[in-house]
Amino acid sequence: MNSKKKIGVVLSGCGVNDGSEIHEAVLTLLAIDRQGATYQCFAPNVLQRDVVNHVTGKATGETRNVLVESARIARGRIRDLVTFDVSEFDALVFPGGFGAAKNLSSFAVDGADCNVEPSVVAAIRAMHQAGKPIGALCIAPVILAKVLGKVTVTIGHDTDTASAITAMGATHEDRGHGEVAIDRANKVVTTPCYMLDASIRQIAEGADHVVAALLELAKAPAPVN
Amino acid sequence: MNSKKKIGVVLSGCGVNDGSEIHEAVLTLLAIDRQGATYQCFAPNVLQRDVVNHVTGKATGETRNVLVESARIARGRIRDLVTFDVSEFDALVFPGGFGAAKNLSSFAVDGADCNVEPSVVAAIRAMHQAGKPIGALCIAPVILAKVLGKVTVTIGHDTDTASAITAMGATHEDRGHGEVAIDRANKVVTTPCYMLDASIRQIAEGADHVVAALLELAKAPAPVN
Repeated sequence: MNSKKKIGVVLSGCGVNDGSEIHEAVLTLLAIDRQGATYQCFAPNVLQRDVVNHVTGKATGETRNVLVESARIARGRIRDLVTFDVSEFDALVFPGGFGAAKNLSSFAVDGADCNVEPSVVAAIRAMHQAGKPIGALCIAPVILAKVLGKVTVTIGHDTDTASAITAMGATHEDRGHGEVAIDRANKVVTTPCYMLDASIRQIAEGADHVVAALLELAKAPAPVN
Repeated sequence: MNSKKKIGVVLSGCGVNDGSEIHEAVLTLLAIDRQGATYQCFAPNVLQRDVVNHVTGKATGETRNVLVESARIARGRIRDLVTFDVSEFDALVFPGGFGAAKNLSSFAVDGADCNVEPSVVAAIRAMHQAGKPIGALCIAPVILAKVLGKVTVTIGHDTDTASAITAMGATHEDRGHGEVAIDRANKVVTTPCYMLDASIRQIAEGADHVVAALLELAKAPAPVN
């Protein structure tokens, strides 16, 4: 078994205000490639909650599809998340951006009472049950908290979001630029990225550290059920 | 004068098939930040030539604005290219993607006879006349060949594109992954990126090398006119 580790990357659109945060997504792909693993991008085939003009910050009233817009970041090499098969992957990771809180879940409007998109729930549960590691950047850790409940994550040190995470039954730990929170029992790795006022090189550090931790956890034997 | 060097980055939309190639754009920003300089993103405030579904590769018939879509990559911190003031910047760089050949110029349809968007022409001419360095990735070097004429650039080793560059009066030099062509007389730096079948870490290497060469050329005294 000398084959490369394979990581699934779940995107949520293309742009910080209504989809995946582009720097976090690209720098996650770069970290995976540089650390000797391979990636496959996924996104749910659903409509975006909204489309935001990134100059004005205002909703435009347009309709866009999460999978189709995510394909911009993936250069067309992307699969519908309903086709995700846990047996193909060693780890799964969620870059951030408001898409995680608008398209992958309803956290942006419903907070701790949010729903999570069904294909996202299925992929997270399948990985967790298989004892395989899951990572999340920026605001995306709220999805892991909602789906898995008793896990430890970080979104930096935003108190409102941390309170919502606690209300979901999870534990929040404060972290700074480039730092990760690692829940070894649940194989969950998270980092704040642009939940802090960061520069792009700090995003690269966060993505590097998440991918390194995922690859280390992927080496450990899966629990015997 | 201990202040950081400042580099203008000209985007052309958001997505390889109808705008800026996202990996090239993000990794240019990362290279600038990591090498101790700062960046300001720009894009022309014009409509895209087309909008392409990046899953199917087909035009959708939608209408999108180059500045508004580019703002996704820039996280909203972007300026209309007509406001570009050469005195503010030490270097200017153009990431690639079909947007360079569809929105910043008409190269994708007109080849060597292409037009270049007026604010792009003005920015390039102003930098060149001021003796300041200009970089371009992927297909974007064709714009520098069209506007400046007698310059040396690379787009990798695609013979059709190289022939068009020669027809514009410029010189083409073959280059491989991560390699740059440096025209020291004209202070023009170019690299192939996704004009070759590259992995994302090779794009990062190309962007790193372009930015390093731009910053080195920016240290040299400007020619006395």
